[in-house]
Formats: sequence, C-alpha cells, structure tokens
Amino acid sequence: MSATDAERAALRHAFALAQRGPRGVNPQVGAVILSPAGEVLAEGWHHGAGTPHAEIDALSTLGPDAARGATAVVTLEPCNHTGRTGPCAVALIEAGVARVVYAVDDPGEVSSGGAARLRDAGVEVEGGVLRDEGETLIASWLTVQRLGRPHVTLKWAQSLDGRAAASDGTSQWITGPEARADVHRRRSLADAIVVGTGTVLADDPALTARREDGGLYEDQPRPVVVGVRAVPQEARVRKHPRPFMQDEGEDLRDLLDRLRELGDQRVFIEGGPTLAASFLRQGLVDELLVYIAPTLIGGDRLAVGDIGVATISQQRRLDIAGVDRLGDDILVTLTPQEA
Amino acid sequence: MSATDAERAALRHAFALAQRGPRGVNPQVGAVILSPAGEVLAEGWHHGAGTPHAEIDALSTLGPDAARGATAVVTLEPCNHTGRTGPCAVALIEAGVARVVYAVDDPGEVSSGGAARLRDAGVEVEGGVLRDEGETLIASWLTVQRLGRPHVTLKWAQSLDGRAAASDGTSQWITGPEARADVHRRRSLADAIVVGTGTVLADDPALTARREDGGLYEDQPRPVVVGVRAVPQEARVRKHPRPFMQDEGEDLRDLLDRLRELGDQRVFIEGGPTLAASFLRQGLVDELLVYIAPTLIGGDRLAVGDIGVATISQQRRLDIAGVDRLGDDILVTLTPQEA
Ligand SMILES: NC(=O)c1ccc[n+]([C@@H]2O[C@H](COP(=O)([O-])OP(=O)(O)OC[C@H]3O[C@@H](n4cnc5c(N)ncnc54)[C@H](OP(=O)(O)O)[C@@H]3O)[C@@H](O)[C@H]2O)c1
Ligand SMILES: NC(=O)c1ccc[n+]([C@@H]2O[C@H](COP(=O)([O-])OP(=O)(O)OC[C@H]3O[C@@H](n4cnc5c(N)ncnc54)[C@H](OP(=O)(O)O)[C@@H]3O)[C@@H](O)[C@H]2O)c1
Repeated sequence: MSATDAERAALRHAFALAQRGPRGVNPQVGAVILSPAGEVLAEGWHHGAGTPHAEIDALSTLGPDAARGATAVVTLEPCNHTGRTGPCAVALIEAGVARVVYAVDDPGEVSSGGAARLRDAGVEVEGGVLRDEGETLIASWLTVQRLGRPHVTLKWAQSLDGRAAASDGTSQWITGPEARADVHRRRSLADAIVVGTGTVLADDPALTARREDGGLYEDQPRPVVVGVRAVPQEARVRKHPRPFMQDEGEDLRDLLDRLRELGDQRVFIEGGPTLAASFLRQGLVDELLVYIAPTLIGGDRLAVGDIGVATISQQRRLDIAGVDRLGDDILVTLTPQEA
Repeated sequence: MSATDAERAALRHAFALAQRGPRGVNPQVGAVILSPAGEVLAEGWHHGAGTPHAEIDALSTLGPDAARGATAVVTLEPCNHTGRTGPCAVALIEAGVARVVYAVDDPGEVSSGGAARLRDAGVEVEGGVLRDEGETLIASWLTVQRLGRPHVTLKWAQSLDGRAAASDGTSQWITGPEARADVHRRRSLADAIVVGTGTVLADDPALTARREDGGLYEDQPRPVVVGVRAVPQEARVRKHPRPFMQDEGEDLRDLLDRLRELGDQRVFIEGGPTLAASFLRQGLVDELLVYIAPTLIGGDRLAVGDIGVATISQQRRLDIAGVDRLGDDILVTLTPQEA
C-alpha cells in the first residue's frame, strides 16, 4: 500500500512545519499525526539542537492514548538513536502508532534503522513518499552527512586573464553590480563566510550579506578570519552583526569540523588567493564560483595562488555546472572531478 | 524608384559571381548587365589585383553598343578612381548604361564618388540595395578600409585561472577536441597566422589548418614567425604548404601593413604570451578569442604576459560578443572597448 492523498497532504504540511525550525547542526524536520480516519490530531517540528525531534514534539501535545492506531507522517525517517531525546522509533511504538509515512531515509550512521525497528514492532512503514521535496528541504544537511563536513563553496572574482588586482594592488570594481549582488545573495544563504588575514588587512571587508539598497539581509553568515595576524581594532568585520571567529588556519579540515559542530553546514570561502589555494590543494572544495570580468590586467596579482601542480598531468580538472551572464560579467560554476 | 525584383535577383546572382574571385587585397565584386526588359546581357567579376573590375569584366563580353540603355547591377559602388583599370563610373557612362544598382557604398578615400559621377552624367543610380548581404560578402575588406590595416584576431587557450601551462612548461590538451577543431576552422578562414619564436621553439607548431580527420583545409593561412631567433631546420612550420615568413617584430604595426600589401586582411595571432601582450599593449587587437578549459593549474606560466597595467584604472576593458560552450570548454569572444 502506498501513501494516501490525506497522507501526502499531511506530508506537504509537515514540510512547511519543518521550515519553522532553525537551520543548524540538525536537519529541519516536521511531523503530523493523523487519526485512522485521516484527521490531523497533532503537529510538531524540530526546534533545534537539544530540543525534542519533530515526532516527539507532535506526540507531546496529545493525551496518553490519543495516538493509538494513528498514522505518523514525518519528513525524515524516525531516528533509531538514543541522543538527547531517545529513539523516536521507540517513542512512536510506545505511543501505539499503527503506521508511519516518511519522505527521506535517514543517512546517519548512528541514527538510521528507525524504519526497520518500527517494522519489527509490527508498525506499517511507508518510506520515500515525496522524497525529492523532502531532500530539497534538507539538501545541505544531507550533503554534510555524506561528506562528514560542511559543504564548501569557493568563490573568487578575476579578470579574463586570471588576475585579481593590478600590480599596485588596486582591484576595486573588477566585476559589476550584478555580480556583486549575486555574491551578497549567496552570502545570505551561507552559514559561514571565511577569508584569510591577508584579505582582511588589504581590503577590510565587512563580510555582511547586503541587499542592493545597502540594507542587511535577515540571515547573516558567521564571519571567520583565518590566520595568525591580528584583526585591527577598527576592522569592519568587528562591526558585523555576528561576532567574528578567528582561526590560525593550521588545520583547515579541523576548522570545518568545528564550524559543523557550531551548526554551520554551508561554508563560503571568499579568498584571498593564498587561502583559496590551500583549500583547493587539500581537496576541501565542493563547488567553485568564478566571476570573470571582461577585462585584462596582466601582472603578478593572481586570483588563485600556487596549488602544487608541477606538471600538466597533475592539473585539477573541473566539471562546468553552469555558465551565466551577470551584467557584463560571466559566472562559471564548477565542481571538482573525482580524483 | 527602388530596385525591381529582376534587379534584386541579378544582385543576388552578382554576390555569387563575386565569390568566384580571390580573397585578397581587393574586395570580391560581381556585376550583371540587364537589358531594359530585365534580361541578363552579361556578367562578370573581379579576378584579383591587376585585373579588370567586375563591371568592366562584364562589359568586355558585350559588343560596342550592346549596353546602351542597359542597367548595371553591381555588388559594390562603381569606383571613381583611375587605378590600373580607369574609373568604372566613366566606363559605364561611356558604354551608355542608363541605370546602375549597387549594394555597398565604396568606403575608399580615393575610389569613392562613383555614384555622384554617374548621376552627374545623367545615369539613374540606386545604392544600398541588399546592403547587409553585400557588406557580409566583403566584411573583412570593409574592416581593412576602416582600420587602415588588417583585422587582427588574438587567440589563446587558458585554464580557468589564466595559466597556459604547468610550471614545467607542459601544456598538452588543456582544451578539448571541440575547441581545437574550432581553432583549425578559424585558421582556415584567416589569411595569415602569426606566432612568436618562443612558441615555435617550445611547441614546434605546424601552423596549418587541419580538419578533424587530420587532412588539410583547402585554404591555408600564411604562416608568420615573429622574432630574431632562428627557426630550426627541422621545424614543422617549414613543411607548411605555404612558405613561412619571418619578421623581427620590431614594429608590429609595420608588419601588419606589409601583410596587408601582400593581400592579407584577416590576421590570426596565436601567441605566445609575450607576443600576445605586445599586440594588446599597442592596441592592435580587434577581436579576442579566449578558450577557457575547466581546470586549475596555478604557477607562473600565464596565458597573457604583462600588458603594462600598473593600477586598476589602466585595466583594458573588453566587451563580450559571445560565450559559447565547446565540448568541456568555454569560448569567450570579446572586442576591446574604445579607449
Ligand atoms: N579576487 C578576489 O576574489 C579576491 C578575494 C579576496 C582577496 N583578494 C585579494 O587578495 C589579496 C590578499 O591576498 P592574500 O593571499 O594575502 O590573502 P588571503 O589568502 O586572504 O590571506 C592569506 C593569509 O591567510 C593566513 N592563513 C592562515 N592559514 C592559512 C592556510 N592554511 N592557507 C593559507 N593562508 C592561511 C596567512 O596569514 P597569517 O600569517 O596571518 O597566518 C596567509 O598569509 C588582496 O589584495 C585582496 O584584494 C581578491
Ligand atoms: N595557451 C596558449 O594559447 C599558447 C599559445 C602559444 C604559446 N603558448 C606557450 O607559450 C610559451 C612560449 O611563450 P613565449 O612568451 O616565449 O612565446 P612567444 O610570445 O611566442 O615568443 C616571444 C618572442 O617573440 C619574439 N618577439 C619579437 N618581436 C616581439 C614583440 N614585438 N613582442 C613580443 N615578442 C616579440 C621575441 O623573441 P626573439 O628574441 O626571437 O626576437 C620574444 O621572446 C610556450 O610554453 C607555449 O606553449 C601558449
């Protein structure tokens, strides 16, 4: 038996409920409890790390036997993992739920297995309903589960000939307003934005996500500065709405792991050339955004530093995911080829 | 009165006749002589420098009074210039032609004025008929008239980060087969192909235009090597179907002028980085073709050398004429902005 129309409608509602929860270390999850007749008995969502999972949040609004024989409709497979809240699969079994419908399988190593546990207890389980919508909802979280670290986007702007600045270091307005607006929009979708001390000292970036009218986006990425040199007292990053984090940059993988622990799943690296090259060399980049301005600069201020390629067979081949015109500029989106 | 259907048909035929003539110093021109009733009396085309112009070629096939009252349909305004053949305008007047229809105004400083001369002699003149088709036919010649030198296309291939080779100089197969086939096709459309001695000594290019099966295109560009260093006896350019020309490169504008005198209107510069930078610095580039491969190389082997930009206000802005995907690669076509 596949899902009923009432269950699908409930699942769509659960997607909307999920989005009330915060983006963070945990996935956004929503749940709806339906009576055997298909009426909504309860709804819930995950309110963030350390709070009950969505199913428990929904069950908690019901009296002791109210869920007996009911159907739980959840956006993510109920967990099988005793964390801060105990396995949701067990809670559903104990509540007497007769059927569970969910969208996305839990990819977690310790948390998966909930569906099997429910079936073992005689509960009817229907997984993979509206899976695509469910995966889109938690895409970055799923990526994090797969990679074991945040998803890393590396962005830079360059002239056609690969330069980031003129010989004297001046670089203002290589790319145009459309490209800059695109960068700010993407910043607002990132959890953290990372730059090297070289860039902080040279450009004094604010690292905020700003709308075209100069106003701040509601969501601001965490500003992260990598390097041992001190960030000046008057640096604009100190006025960022979120406190900036500084990291020595000795171990970039470890930095990513710590950002993940803080709930950052999408990390945006904005250079400069030295830091960008380090991330590339260590294979820590999942996506590249290269904004190419139609201009020639020449000279030695390159947009990407040395990435340790001594001979052509070591070149880092990429796949082009898209080529877009942004005003006068070109945005090339790429992903590294598997080594 | 504008052109009749019979005259337009005759003009289209004249475009085809024009193409029987060689591409060279002179424009390709075709002519058809129509009787007052609209029948084709004669046709002709320009067979190359030193031979009669198209109108004269057509008239020469007719008896003394056969063109009296006729209409001459010509792809280019009849010339007013006493060159090797005398002004065509006068020849048409003397032949008793009553009406002249043509596509493109003659932009030449010494040769233009033919239409006015014809009108002064009482001949009916209709210019600008099917002008776009007429201009397309002789686009490169028109460019040469406007610039006073051959049209220069500068081409290079680079990695996304602007490198032409790895640190050890290896560079094979940065771009893929589609991009390379595109370069060869464009070589076959050029009159001359120019490289520096650095490239000859490093890569030993054949400088031929080859089809994908390895066979030669019918039209081969003149190979030109710039620099004082000797081209090795065993160099592949010495086996080119056309004899190669070597130039010291002291005065690139003068080199272009000499190529024009030899009939070369479209010059294709294929690098390397040092020569490309010289042409750019001297403002001698009309079109850029940049083949970008989705790969990162890093290091100091740049696709374009120093172009004398010290500060960002001196950057050489370009306009993007097109962005195309060629297999895995991107071709960006650009033109320099007016200074
Ligand atoms: N075109 C663009 O998109 C773009 C973007 C950003 C910047 N820029 C330009 O880039 C220039 C600054 O270049 P930059 O290379 O000095 O800047 P950078 O890459 O921002 O900073 C490099 C510095 O980061 C620190 N660092 C710490 N750990 C590191 C690690 N694992 N790998 C690499 N670096 C690490 C080091 O400084 P410590 O000694 O402090 O540890 C290092 O010198 C400026 O002119 C700026 O305008 C251009
Ligand atoms: N990516 C690409 O599209 C591409 C294309 C071609 C070459 N390459 C690479 O480029 C490298 C060769 O670089 P390169 O810079 O030595 O080659 P190049 O630009 O072909 O040659 C430069 C040489 O040309 C001569 N020359 C004469 N007049 C000149 C002038 N007005 N301006 C500039 N040069 C003039 C000089 O040599 P004399 O001392 O002999 O006068 C000069 O050293 C090779 O590794 C090759 O693989 C890449």
